Amino acid sequence: MAASTALTVNYTRIQTLTSYFQHCRSKRWINLKTVNRRINRRSPFCQSLKRHAATVVSGTELARQIHKEVQSDIAKLVAQGNRRPHLSVILVGNDHASHTYVRNKTRAASLLGMSSSTIFRPSSVSQEEMLELIDKCNRDRSISGLLVQLPLPEKDVDGFHIVNIGKLCLDQRCMVPATAAAVWEIIRRMGIETVGKNVIVVGRSKNVGMPIAMLLHSDRNHERPGGDATVIMAHRFTPLPRLKELASLADIVIAAAGVPHLITADMVKEGAAVIDVGINRMQDPVTGKLRLVGDVDFEAVKKKAGFITPVPGGVGPMTIAMVMKNTVTAAKNAPTY
Amino acid sequence: MAASTALTVNYTRIQTLTSYFQHCRSKRWINLKTVNRRINRRSPFCQSLKRHAATVVSGTELARQIHKEVQSDIAKLVAQGNRRPHLSVILVGNDHASHTYVRNKTRAASLLGMSSSTIFRPSSVSQEEMLELIDKCNRDRSISGLLVQLPLPEKDVDGFHIVNIGKLCLDQRCMVPATAAAVWEIIRRMGIETVGKNVIVVGRSKNVGMPIAMLLHSDRNHERPGGDATVIMAHRFTPLPRLKELASLADIVIAAAGVPHLITADMVKEGAAVIDVGINRMQDPVTGKLRLVGDVDFEAVKKKAGFITPVPGGVGPMTIAMVMKNTVTAAKNAPTY
Repeated sequence: MAASTALTVNYTRIQTLTSYFQHCRSKRWINLKTVNRRINRRSPFCQSLKRHAATVVSGTELARQIHKEVQSDIAKLVAQGNRRPHLSVILVGNDHASHTYVRNKTRAASLLGMSSSTIFRPSSVSQEEMLELIDKCNRDRSISGLLVQLPLPEKDVDGFHIVNIGKLCLDQRCMVPATAAAVWEIIRRMGIETVGKNVIVVGRSKNVGMPIAMLLHSDRNHERPGGDATVIMAHRFTPLPRLKELASLADIVIAAAGVPHLITADMVKEGAAVIDVGINRMQDPVTGKLRLVGDVDFEAVKKKAGFITPVPGGVGPMTIAMVMKNTVTAAKNAPTY
Repeated sequence: MAASTALTVNYTRIQTLTSYFQHCRSKRWINLKTVNRRINRRSPFCQSLKRHAATVVSGTELARQIHKEVQSDIAKLVAQGNRRPHLSVILVGNDHASHTYVRNKTRAASLLGMSSSTIFRPSSVSQEEMLELIDKCNRDRSISGLLVQLPLPEKDVDGFHIVNIGKLCLDQRCMVPATAAAVWEIIRRMGIETVGKNVIVVGRSKNVGMPIAMLLHSDRNHERPGGDATVIMAHRFTPLPRLKELASLADIVIAAAGVPHLITADMVKEGAAVIDVGINRMQDPVTGKLRLVGDVDFEAVKKKAGFITPVPGGVGPMTIAMVMKNTVTAAKNAPTY
């Protein structure tokens, strides 16, 4: 899909305008990149500047940043005499996509200095055996992080457990499900404001849409900080005209419905941030080949949005980076006795 | 506050119009009352009929219905040789409102045939002692339900525990926090449709706003059924013009912000259902007396809404009824060994 361009930021133009932004009390939510974007594109000081297409957010690039941070974290941990973080994956069934996901994750782990192992089970495995296996892994102190990859990718349960979801929804410190964490991290690292902003989350799955809505609407001063945004939870029962109406009001659109090209340009507000979580396999009408597309009509929306993430190369690589980060966090929090 | 009027429903007019409603596939979401209201007020067949003010939903009346159901449930349980359901309350501090709440709850319990007991602790009680006390009550098999009433009423923790909230947010069978359950039950018993409708929940507290949003946006076919509505979560960081804009689109407005008269008539769509969860103490400008008011400008909104709950006499008594219902459910689910 579309090549992703790096952000080029001119920091020197910021300094003289500090006072202009002093009314923004919660400064930590406005980083220089945002400010600069505002100056370049939306501030009343620069109205004569021409409108250009959205910044295409390279998830691949952001993931690389996080990988570096994780790598140095692991080196430090090991240098301090701790056990090397270990990622275990239970892979159920023969689904091709699942195998690819798992391979990507274990490869990333080894590149970052983590050890990893994969336990294979057929899709006929009993619920009882699965529970026993998970329980065994949970008790195994040599395992820092555990992923259970079920046949359908949307049933991925990274960071997905009743107690963990309870903590997440009560804004307590917890493991944020990897895809939701990826969306959050993209928003933060791109300097996209959320406080008092309008967000629409399209899709209400328990491992993606719901946790994203939880993160973004909640209080930034709580133990697990939230985005303080007004959040609209839309889904398959939201009538299309209503979806369009609500999406048009959104400063941030998060598409996580699993419907190819659901989000079209007419639904998106000029300058909005559009984050595409969808991964859909579609046959290319010209070449006949299967290719991955998101939930967003990328080429059209790119011309209108302020930020947009491509598929592939957007939320996908960031999700893997967040799995790595979660595993190291788990290793850090593990009892050392 | 305003006297609540009972619903008078003319069921005979329904029969001839059945075919008109056959396009509504999910019939269980449309009960006769809704249909009748439609015929009386919104159907194209009756456009000449004059617009009248909202149906004032009497929480007191609905609570009475539920109390009767609970009473007969308890009688059955006891007749089957089970232990009588018992409600225990831990009451911390001397707050007048808390004492009133607890008295109302224990009185309701005894009227319904439940036994109850109150454990008093000063507000200086240590966190440790509280946890021990709660743990002791949890292990005590003679106690079916436990309420912890902390000094501030908004910290009421009915149905409020990490695992329970985890289950709630994953749409699993669970104890729904009493106030959220009250709102849900009002919507259901009044026959207000939610599937595909637009709901705004104003206020994101973990015991009221958040669980209401969870109930209403989720899937009606899940283990803990949801409302399949598009849900907007608004809160203190939602700018007022934006709140007005979003509320005007809502078929159901749930006000749970704790701000007197936050929801004014200009924010409410003609015919919307307005459920007022706010309980605010305000000095009457004329009499100088303290009185309870909700988050909704009742007198003005009543003229525009389709349904409205008063304060007092709306969500309040229903909340107590739901505590009773939750206690009996707990007694039913308790192990009998």
